[in-house]
Amino acid sequence: MLQVWALDGIPEITPGDDLVTVIADAAAGGLADGDIIVVTSKVVSKAEGRILAADDREEAITAETVRVVASRPTPNGGTTRIVQNRLGMVSAAAGVDASNTPHGTILLLPEDPDASARLIAAGLRERLGVEVGVLVSDTLGRAWRDGQTDHAIGAGGVHVFEDLRGETDAEGRSLVVTMPCVADELAAATDLVKGKAARRPVAVVRGRADLVGSLDLPGARSIVRPLERDMFRLGADEAYAEGFAAGAASVTPSSAP
Amino acid sequence: MLQVWALDGIPEITPGDDLVTVIADAAAGGLADGDIIVVTSKVVSKAEGRILAADDREEAITAETVRVVASRPTPNGGTTRIVQNRLGMVSAAAGVDASNTPHGTILLLPEDPDASARLIAAGLRERLGVEVGVLVSDTLGRAWRDGQTDHAIGAGGVHVFEDLRGETDAEGRSLVVTMPCVADELAAATDLVKGKAARRPVAVVRGRADLVGSLDLPGARSIVRPLERDMFRLGADEAYAEGFAAGAASVTPSSAP
Repeated sequence: MLQVWALDGIPEITPGDDLVTVIADAAAGGLADGDIIVVTSKVVSKAEGRILAADDREEAITAETVRVVASRPTPNGGTTRIVQNRLGMVSAAAGVDASNTPHGTILLLPEDPDASARLIAAGLRERLGVEVGVLVSDTLGRAWRDGQTDHAIGAGGVHVFEDLRGETDAEGRSLVVTMPCVADELAAATDLVKGKAARRPVAVVRGRADLVGSLDLPGARSIVRPLERDMFRLGADEAYAEGFAAGAASVTPSSAP
Repeated sequence: MLQVWALDGIPEITPGDDLVTVIADAAAGGLADGDIIVVTSKVVSKAEGRILAADDREEAITAETVRVVASRPTPNGGTTRIVQNRLGMVSAAAGVDASNTPHGTILLLPEDPDASARLIAAGLRERLGVEVGVLVSDTLGRAWRDGQTDHAIGAGGVHVFEDLRGETDAEGRSLVVTMPCVADELAAATDLVKGKAARRPVAVVRGRADLVGSLDLPGARSIVRPLERDMFRLGADEAYAEGFAAGAASVTPSSAP
């Protein structure tokens, strides 16, 4: 049995707030060994002071962008930019967020969500004497499927993959190809109790204590597929355009003076 | 509080089995109004007799494929084919499955997973007198991120999206862009209790009765992004190659005889 609930009573977070104290207070002694705490990146960003004036939004997106993957005009005259950000994540607007932020401001993603998750996990373990794991979550769109789901962008003391290598299915065949991304599944599960409009940015999952471990476990950065194995490293239109230019150049007579 | 648990005592499913009876027996009176039952597509396929000899695997993948999105050689000399199948889903091998199947056999996806989900939901509602919803789930890889997560490929009597249009965030701004795909999040949550190696293909989610509704609700087919809005309708290499050929052709002198 898995139990998933959001913590009530998380106050509005402002720069400098100690999330360990905030979460420990809200949990009010209700955490146990093996619990996994999933914290919305938004409150981590707020606590870390990753706040900019909204006027700087386009500039901020550009600054957070390592690589433009795809872009497309929006109906209202803007541009949707799908980019890979400095954390390796592919998402719209590089994770620069203007919802649920103080008016006139935008939020950048945490500087290093894996480090943030580890810090909160270490703090809660020390403060409460319980071995919990921590994920930092973000709401992401997907290729091929409409809508968004929550994903893990930071992990501290939680296995991000369930390693089935060496295990066999009920017929005795190897499950080598299957590597469930449990961190993303945990983040998705907590979105079902957090709600987008409500101020419930922290949720707890109880029942998968086997996924909680050392603070040295690989972070959520390890979920990002390396570019050389990424068949969708560029949008179809963008790749076509690159190919078209290269194709045209390949047969243009070299008649330059 | 969300509760998620797998049903024990689901027997090996064979063609012709009635999943309504199987699930009702395994639940043993433990279902309530608003519960959402998530059934692994594998057992739906088995019950529906979607079983072929393993020798026909490549042929079956081709038959299920509407459109090749990307392909790449594997280290062992095979080919990974990412394709869009007749259900609109983009996945590896068109969902043709060789794990947890009787030796020497493969499984096709259910003919119409939305219809399967509605049939099971209708049957359980009638049999047990409780208004439950049903999702059919499948394990899918993702663009940009390693590992797999479970997704909804069929839905009966469950809202697949949480519609936040018209709602505002805590600062009063519209949440119009956000449309959480709760069906995929529910499927992901149940993967955490099903296990891949165990024979626990049916799980129950309790605590989101607000997502359960009429059997006429749109199915999981509505999650598939239409091709004209899909920025990743083709792999980067494939789109580049198409563009290259078109670019080369665009400047080749038309000197054909």
